[in-house]
Amino acid sequence: MKYDKLVRNSLGRLVPTVVNGVAQVPFMGVGKYRPTGHKAAPPIVSAADFPADGNKVLSGLKDALIKSGLRDGMTISSHHHFRNGDLIANQIFDIAAEMGVKNLVWFPSASFECHSPLLKYLEDGTIHHIEGSMNGSLGRFTSSGKMQGMGVLRSHGGRYQAVQDGEVHIDIAVIAAPTADFFGNATGDRGPAACGLLGFALADSQYADKVIVVTDNLVPFPCIPWQIQGNNVDHVVVVDKVGIPEKIVSGTTEITRSPDRLLLAEWSAQFCEEAGLIHDGFSFQAGAGGTALSIGVYFTEILKRNGWKAAFARGGSNRYLVEMLEEGYTKFILDGQTFDLEGVRSMRENWNHVNTSPFTSYNYHGKGFFAQFVDIVILGATEVDVNFNANVVTHSDGVLLHGIGGWQNTLFGKTTILPVPLFRDRMPVILDEVTTITGPGELIDVIVTERGIAINPLRTDLIEKMKGSSLPIKTIQELQAEAEAICGKPAKPKLTDEPVAVIKWVDGTIIDTVWKLAE
Amino acid sequence: MKYDKLVRNSLGRLVPTVVNGVAQVPFMGVGKYRPTGHKAAPPIVSAADFPADGNKVLSGLKDALIKSGLRDGMTISSHHHFRNGDLIANQIFDIAAEMGVKNLVWFPSASFECHSPLLKYLEDGTIHHIEGSMNGSLGRFTSSGKMQGMGVLRSHGGRYQAVQDGEVHIDIAVIAAPTADFFGNATGDRGPAACGLLGFALADSQYADKVIVVTDNLVPFPCIPWQIQGNNVDHVVVVDKVGIPEKIVSGTTEITRSPDRLLLAEWSAQFCEEAGLIHDGFSFQAGAGGTALSIGVYFTEILKRNGWKAAFARGGSNRYLVEMLEEGYTKFILDGQTFDLEGVRSMRENWNHVNTSPFTSYNYHGKGFFAQFVDIVILGATEVDVNFNANVVTHSDGVLLHGIGGWQNTLFGKTTILPVPLFRDRMPVILDEVTTITGPGELIDVIVTERGIAINPLRTDLIEKMKGSSLPIKTIQELQAEAEAICGKPAKPKLTDEPVAVIKWVDGTIIDTVWKLAE
Repeated sequence: MKYDKLVRNSLGRLVPTVVNGVAQVPFMGVGKYRPTGHKAAPPIVSAADFPADGNKVLSGLKDALIKSGLRDGMTISSHHHFRNGDLIANQIFDIAAEMGVKNLVWFPSASFECHSPLLKYLEDGTIHHIEGSMNGSLGRFTSSGKMQGMGVLRSHGGRYQAVQDGEVHIDIAVIAAPTADFFGNATGDRGPAACGLLGFALADSQYADKVIVVTDNLVPFPCIPWQIQGNNVDHVVVVDKVGIPEKIVSGTTEITRSPDRLLLAEWSAQFCEEAGLIHDGFSFQAGAGGTALSIGVYFTEILKRNGWKAAFARGGSNRYLVEMLEEGYTKFILDGQTFDLEGVRSMRENWNHVNTSPFTSYNYHGKGFFAQFVDIVILGATEVDVNFNANVVTHSDGVLLHGIGGWQNTLFGKTTILPVPLFRDRMPVILDEVTTITGPGELIDVIVTERGIAINPLRTDLIEKMKGSSLPIKTIQELQAEAEAICGKPAKPKLTDEPVAVIKWVDGTIIDTVWKLAE
Repeated sequence: MKYDKLVRNSLGRLVPTVVNGVAQVPFMGVGKYRPTGHKAAPPIVSAADFPADGNKVLSGLKDALIKSGLRDGMTISSHHHFRNGDLIANQIFDIAAEMGVKNLVWFPSASFECHSPLLKYLEDGTIHHIEGSMNGSLGRFTSSGKMQGMGVLRSHGGRYQAVQDGEVHIDIAVIAAPTADFFGNATGDRGPAACGLLGFALADSQYADKVIVVTDNLVPFPCIPWQIQGNNVDHVVVVDKVGIPEKIVSGTTEITRSPDRLLLAEWSAQFCEEAGLIHDGFSFQAGAGGTALSIGVYFTEILKRNGWKAAFARGGSNRYLVEMLEEGYTKFILDGQTFDLEGVRSMRENWNHVNTSPFTSYNYHGKGFFAQFVDIVILGATEVDVNFNANVVTHSDGVLLHGIGGWQNTLFGKTTILPVPLFRDRMPVILDEVTTITGPGELIDVIVTERGIAINPLRTDLIEKMKGSSLPIKTIQELQAEAEAICGKPAKPKLTDEPVAVIKWVDGTIIDTVWKLAE
């Protein structure tokens, strides 16, 4: 069953009680849902069934998929460290289609525009549905209601949680690797298609029934570092090219030149300094967008001025963070994905540029996760509402266009700041209600816009500290009113009452639903 | 039930069908037993139940044990990276005894003479039995039949396998760590009691219900490297001293000066060279004993002479291996435990000195393990029989005195060589039947003694290659006869028919039984 009966969760959002045949728990509030039961338990295997000489290399991906038992209805996973330069995910489904295999579930850690050739397999039934981010044309396809199953979007941490908890059982994981050895040890930090790390594939390697490593750079054993451990790998496949290096680098790795965005960056940094959030040994996470990068540069200036040093900077790494590390303004980079080649180089060369995974940084169903104790987190959003709830997955026209990434997970940092423009294309960003709640307002502390800064009323400490600041501190209602004075009251997106995808919270509950667009 | 009905396994050894109430599988031959079922599945936890600021530090070990729910009948684990300098394991049971807790199972990765204070807890019922190596006085206690439960000896790989497969459920793991942070990330490669790595505690951290990290060197988050990941840790305890550094270093880290042992080393190395086992890119494992160290030195000379380089050397690391790495005669050290402070330093400083674990190197119930593709393995034995079966746990008087360590696991290397003296204290080492089979003869390829070298008849390739060698190649029967001509036919040990401990094979089956000594 694609979905069943809708109920209202604790945020008042209508969510299905069954998704793709699996019973669901509606979101209950942050930290309210307590899991029961035990982690997923993969079958016990014996080394007696693997090559005694350690050589697991097969002739090709098709051979490996056949030996892994590829058949109708399986769940096939892949990772997105190659971003828009991935050359492997599409091949899996080309082979499946050629073999006549149907109703597969694709479980990527994220999808990109390079995966739009998969639309034909969603149409012809090779792929039943996608659980993972549905960006760009895959998102539009989902929003139009054409996907056979429901889309399921999870954060990076939520993906680890879902696999660990057995909510998603991966039949075959295909792990594209820039470098690997015959045993299946693999690393992302070197090789012609070096992408830094392979942390998004960790859960897959640990819990999938069958694990295939695909590489274009086979090195003698041992492949060091072994970011993915061969002891979890069934087969190794060598191909000509696993990724297009120039497309692996993220598009947004330059600091912003837009005066409006520079203002957001400056105010965000000034806010953090005045509120006393920056100190010797502080920590922060900023994404790869131009505004976030600029904030990182401001932070470094504040550290320099005070003779301070960050305990750690949390990446997505890029050349600005690497400079910060190499100049001694942060002791460590704890990196979840490298956004440029300087990040890759630094991870390869510097002990203090640390390869992390969604397990260490984001898994809510672990004994803690380190995103919880990051001091300052800078994030984006497509929409924010007057209760500080925010949206990152749909646009104001209701179209699903983005994945969650680590966004939900990083909300658990000590102070979360969203620098956002007050309006985009004359659509206000601050609304009565966001189209899709991706993160609950109780975890979002500060909204910085070019017309003023709103502090979440829950953060009485910050409100107190910012009294008398020269920064334009306003209520979120005031900011909303200013936007509406310019743009008018925004129209609601035209949606049907048919769910097409759900947004999972970090604990596996459903925080919101994505609805089919009206014709 | 301590044990039940005895049956003969495939080697003809009598083994119990039940041990400490758990049904057992008799050894069926190498690679013959196929496991069924799924891996152990720890309970799913929620970060909501752990400190939001990441700080898991409690006031002391007692507090941590109480918060971990210590109670009668639990299984408590510890690791042996501090070797005879461990200061923590005894404290656990001091606290348990003080609390009146009874019938605990101690599940160390190995025990040492420093743990002899635990004898009183075996006597008063605080500890029911030990599953782990029982060396020295703990071994004698076991052999005398005084332990309430049966001893269960496992190899390092077998210990990982048993935990992973759910044969041993650890209630509380106590992981002593030379350095850790408040979240429980921990490393062994630095700190006042630096011991190198913590790989023996990996399974414990992954599968135990509760995990306590004990350190005497609390550093700011993040503790890098995080050999043990805080995401698996419940509590952190800070003590004055976790280990005595001078006792952490293994006793036997000097090359031998004994002419007999030097001869064994020289012949072993010459054998390997003549048989063509040494080549550019070969790999080897030699232990920390004086003979093994000397063989490593000979191997390096052979590499130098030929302009070759080893692909990797497998440690127990020591200054000889470190020199080999630093001088470029091996590309990597894959290290399971550091035997001296040079090993610790090298692991801390050199990317190519790699921290491994029983999971990567030894776990038979994984998708392969790398000990399988080590070219040459040099090991010791207390006894060998004419079928090439060998014993490392008991002496010829039947007393249990040693653990298995990684010995069983390394037998899977391509060629296993045992350099042993033909007799010790006028007791022949080559017997009709060993006291306790720890490793089956089919995996043992060459016996090197000071009177000649015996090749396992299964290795027709080696026999062929050594035709015409100047080395004294003999049959094992000839070697036995020479020993008996000097020492006479050895007396059998005086044993009862009461089992006191079992020897697990790498797949969890029982390969042999240790019997209570006759009075």
